[in-house]
Amino acid sequence: MPTPKQITTVALIAARFPELFGETVGDVHQTVTGASSPELSKIGEMSFLSTPKAFESAKSSAASVFVVPVKSKELAVQTFPSKTILTSLNPEKAMAVVISEFFLKTPFTNFEIQSVHPSAYIGENSRIAPSARIGPNAFIGANSQISEHVYIGANAVVEENCSIGPNTVIHPLAYIGHSTEIGARCEIHPHTVIGKEGFGYAHDEKFNHSRIPHQGRVVIEDDVQIGACVAIDRATFGETRIERGVIMDNLIHIAHNNRIGRNSILTSGFTIAGSSKIGANFVAGGKTVVTGHIEIADNVQVAALTAVSKSIPMPGQYGGNPLVSLQQHIKTKAALAHLPQMRKMLQKITKHLGLEDVE
Amino acid sequence: MPTPKQITTVALIAARFPELFGETVGDVHQTVTGASSPELSKIGEMSFLSTPKAFESAKSSAASVFVVPVKSKELAVQTFPSKTILTSLNPEKAMAVVISEFFLKTPFTNFEIQSVHPSAYIGENSRIAPSARIGPNAFIGANSQISEHVYIGANAVVEENCSIGPNTVIHPLAYIGHSTEIGARCEIHPHTVIGKEGFGYAHDEKFNHSRIPHQGRVVIEDDVQIGACVAIDRATFGETRIERGVIMDNLIHIAHNNRIGRNSILTSGFTIAGSSKIGANFVAGGKTVVTGHIEIADNVQVAALTAVSKSIPMPGQYGGNPLVSLQQHIKTKAALAHLPQMRKMLQKITKHLGLEDVE
Amino acid sequence: MPTPKQITTVALIAARFPELFGETVGDVHQTVTGASSPELSKIGEMSFLSTPKAFESAKSSAASVFVVPVKSKELAVQTFPSKTILTSLNPEKAMAVVISEFFLKTPFTNFEIQSVHPSAYIGENSRIAPSARIGPNAFIGANSQISEHVYIGANAVVEENCSIGPNTVIHPLAYIGHSTEIGARCEIHPHTVIGKEGFGYAHDEKFNHSRIPHQGRVVIEDDVQIGACVAIDRATFGETRIERGVIMDNLIHIAHNNRIGRNSILTSGFTIAGSSKIGANFVAGGKTVVTGHIEIADNVQVAALTAVSKSIPMPGQYGGNPLVSLQQHIKTKAALAHLPQMRKMLQKITKHLGLEDVE
Repeated sequence: MPTPKQITTVALIAARFPELFGETVGDVHQTVTGASSPELSKIGEMSFLSTPKAFESAKSSAASVFVVPVKSKELAVQTFPSKTILTSLNPEKAMAVVISEFFLKTPFTNFEIQSVHPSAYIGENSRIAPSARIGPNAFIGANSQISEHVYIGANAVVEENCSIGPNTVIHPLAYIGHSTEIGARCEIHPHTVIGKEGFGYAHDEKFNHSRIPHQGRVVIEDDVQIGACVAIDRATFGETRIERGVIMDNLIHIAHNNRIGRNSILTSGFTIAGSSKIGANFVAGGKTVVTGHIEIADNVQVAALTAVSKSIPMPGQYGGNPLVSLQQHIKTKAALAHLPQMRKMLQKITKHLGLEDVE
Repeated sequence: MPTPKQITTVALIAARFPELFGETVGDVHQTVTGASSPELSKIGEMSFLSTPKAFESAKSSAASVFVVPVKSKELAVQTFPSKTILTSLNPEKAMAVVISEFFLKTPFTNFEIQSVHPSAYIGENSRIAPSARIGPNAFIGANSQISEHVYIGANAVVEENCSIGPNTVIHPLAYIGHSTEIGARCEIHPHTVIGKEGFGYAHDEKFNHSRIPHQGRVVIEDDVQIGACVAIDRATFGETRIERGVIMDNLIHIAHNNRIGRNSILTSGFTIAGSSKIGANFVAGGKTVVTGHIEIADNVQVAALTAVSKSIPMPGQYGGNPLVSLQQHIKTKAALAHLPQMRKMLQKITKHLGLEDVE
Repeated sequence: MPTPKQITTVALIAARFPELFGETVGDVHQTVTGASSPELSKIGEMSFLSTPKAFESAKSSAASVFVVPVKSKELAVQTFPSKTILTSLNPEKAMAVVISEFFLKTPFTNFEIQSVHPSAYIGENSRIAPSARIGPNAFIGANSQISEHVYIGANAVVEENCSIGPNTVIHPLAYIGHSTEIGARCEIHPHTVIGKEGFGYAHDEKFNHSRIPHQGRVVIEDDVQIGACVAIDRATFGETRIERGVIMDNLIHIAHNNRIGRNSILTSGFTIAGSSKIGANFVAGGKTVVTGHIEIADNVQVAALTAVSKSIPMPGQYGGNPLVSLQQHIKTKAALAHLPQMRKMLQKITKHLGLEDVE
């Protein structure tokens, strides 16, 4: 059974994370029985309002406690006179840590697997730390190192010569190819494939293709979280590297020899061809495509559906295909909606002036 | 071995589905040994022609029986004087049900698994209905309910606290996350991931990301069919819900807290960000992208590659990026093909008039 | 343990593939201890330079031997006076075969599985060749044929009535649906789904959907390589066919009844709707979409993000949405970047001429 919810108070929550919480207005000893969204909260529960925008619709919430931005305290007190108000510099982060610490009713990982299940396959010379848990019918190849507090789910496959750092979760049915190194506190979701051969071929004069064996590997640094149905190919030589703190959504493709910078955010459908280098804090909107053999500076953000077809040497916001500044991209999209009208107008002018069409 | 094909007659087929079939012209006692496409049918087989357009190329078919639209009966009799003609208000649906009922040579599911395979893992307090079948090395977590006539394929994983409705098929290697509810007569294909954590994070001032634990779940209503390599994330709080009768192709991403309306059709590559609500009978062309926190009315259809970046309050047909009516989208695409020429013409006019370029 | 690296000489390598190598300049008896990229090579290793462009940055390489294009021999000898130079008509192919033959330190497949693992499920009447290897907890359905030297990885599923040709590798966690035929020397990566039901439905007047049972199959010819998280659906009737020598990247969707021509290259995110026929040597840039029921001639290449919405009867290079020649596509993209400016200029001219806007 999942861990039962705890019952605590506003004061205890605030005291547990002093760096996150500020002032309390109202009953500091208010009992807190859980955390939820404003619309789903019940009496006794705590809810988190990141911006004053959310206040209006939260008026009908049954929540007993609202966590609100420090600078919106007065508005919150006015808007919710009967609630306990707790201020925070970062209500979203407060939500993440309060739920994790006090109210986690559904764990990330299968709670019922307590050790190495007897049906798991453990290859020769693999070392499994005593506190590691390995699910039924999982496969751990030879010469792999599984660290303390690692969880490897049912039917997952970790090939030979891998290293999995402490507290990392490999969900059921994930696939980790040979020689992959994964750091501490990572999470790899089901049906993700890390460390398969890259898509590199030599072609002869008849256009037959010979696979170039990929002798490199994938390195996933600490605190990386990777969604479902993601493919990260290993390097031809050297490494494909995902730096620490990167988070990836579902259905992403990372080709061989790429390097994804620290704390980058890759949303669903992100695709990158081989041998590019992305800086830190990159944020990619949905279905962004990045070409191979380019570099992207630190602190670049691109809109959804962007095609990054050349290096981006300067931080900033970009979009479009071809790639332009985000500002220019928004103007282009706006103009595009007028394109048929522009075409007609151009024909009218051409006729008016008695000019001939260009071919 | 697969179930052998039956041998039946036109009269028996027509009698079995009186609501689907109309008149027979020709030999009502004609033996029918199978069903196939016009070009692949052999003598004795039945073929289905949805529209008169298909008649011409079907002239060389060896099929002995054609199912044709009621309103095209006369044309069919003229075109195929030596065949038996059976009319239907819906030849496509006739094909679906006739094959399912009489000629299914290849079942959806592994016929050889007859009960719970001894190598399957069954967690504590799980209830498996007597008629359910569970394949080798499948995993059923604790406290899960598997209803009558459910099939769970080899190496599939169903985590704890799940409920799987009667006659549902979970194909081999599918993954169902904890607390997921799946209705009756659903089908989930291999390598699909339902009910993993959503992609929701809080960010601090150094752009480190803290996972917001997703405490909600996924609910799949009755008669939903989901393709391969699909990811459906569970809700932050509350539910991600797929309403009854929805059909989904392969490689689709449904983020947390979305609601997909009854009988919607999502084709391959469909992607939707979080917390949107799609009405009934939505039809999305390939690789459509839908943004988060919007609503789409009932009976909306969008072209392939559409980017739905705002709510669609009215039923109708749409397309493009930015989103416009389908009619406007078709005009924009047509104009786009003339864009280089438009640019040249504009330069010619500018020069002709002696005007200065805008920046 | 992986096969240890061999130590050999330039002369032995050149002699092993006389059709690939030309002249040696420098020490033909130079020992070669491995192969890597110019920047990662150590003393004693061989590196491959496909074009003179790569020469400049390779000046600082520690590699002892460079394989260079025949026609760039003189430049290579001048640029790398202290290295041994070996010429080749195809340095990329030389790299592929030399590594495979002499220096493969990390095999494609799990080296530790030597036969049929006792935990694998083998269905009735399946024939497993004596040299085939089948990993732990893999599933082989009834009546399937597994040929000599096939490798089927841990937790992979091959359903009933399949045929897998000699030397083919089915990686762990791959799924092969029933009745699928796979040729010799193929490779199928993890989490790929071959031969599931196609996405074909009949719809009634209430927009309920009835699955059309897909009675066809998938045929994969010889020497086909398929990446991770790829879905290839089986035919309604007849076949979905991937012709010999095709290579596919990750996250690709091939709907029912398609035919992909010999030696085609499909890169990541390629999507094709049903019943189309693609000729030989097709090359698709990333995230290309192809509509259903069309034909593409032999020797067609399309740019990344192309939408092929109609048949392409002539060989050549194409791009865009709508589809145009690659040349036109490049011009359209260039013009698109000027669209907001074009719009302003058009307004200026309209005003200048005192014309009224078209609606």
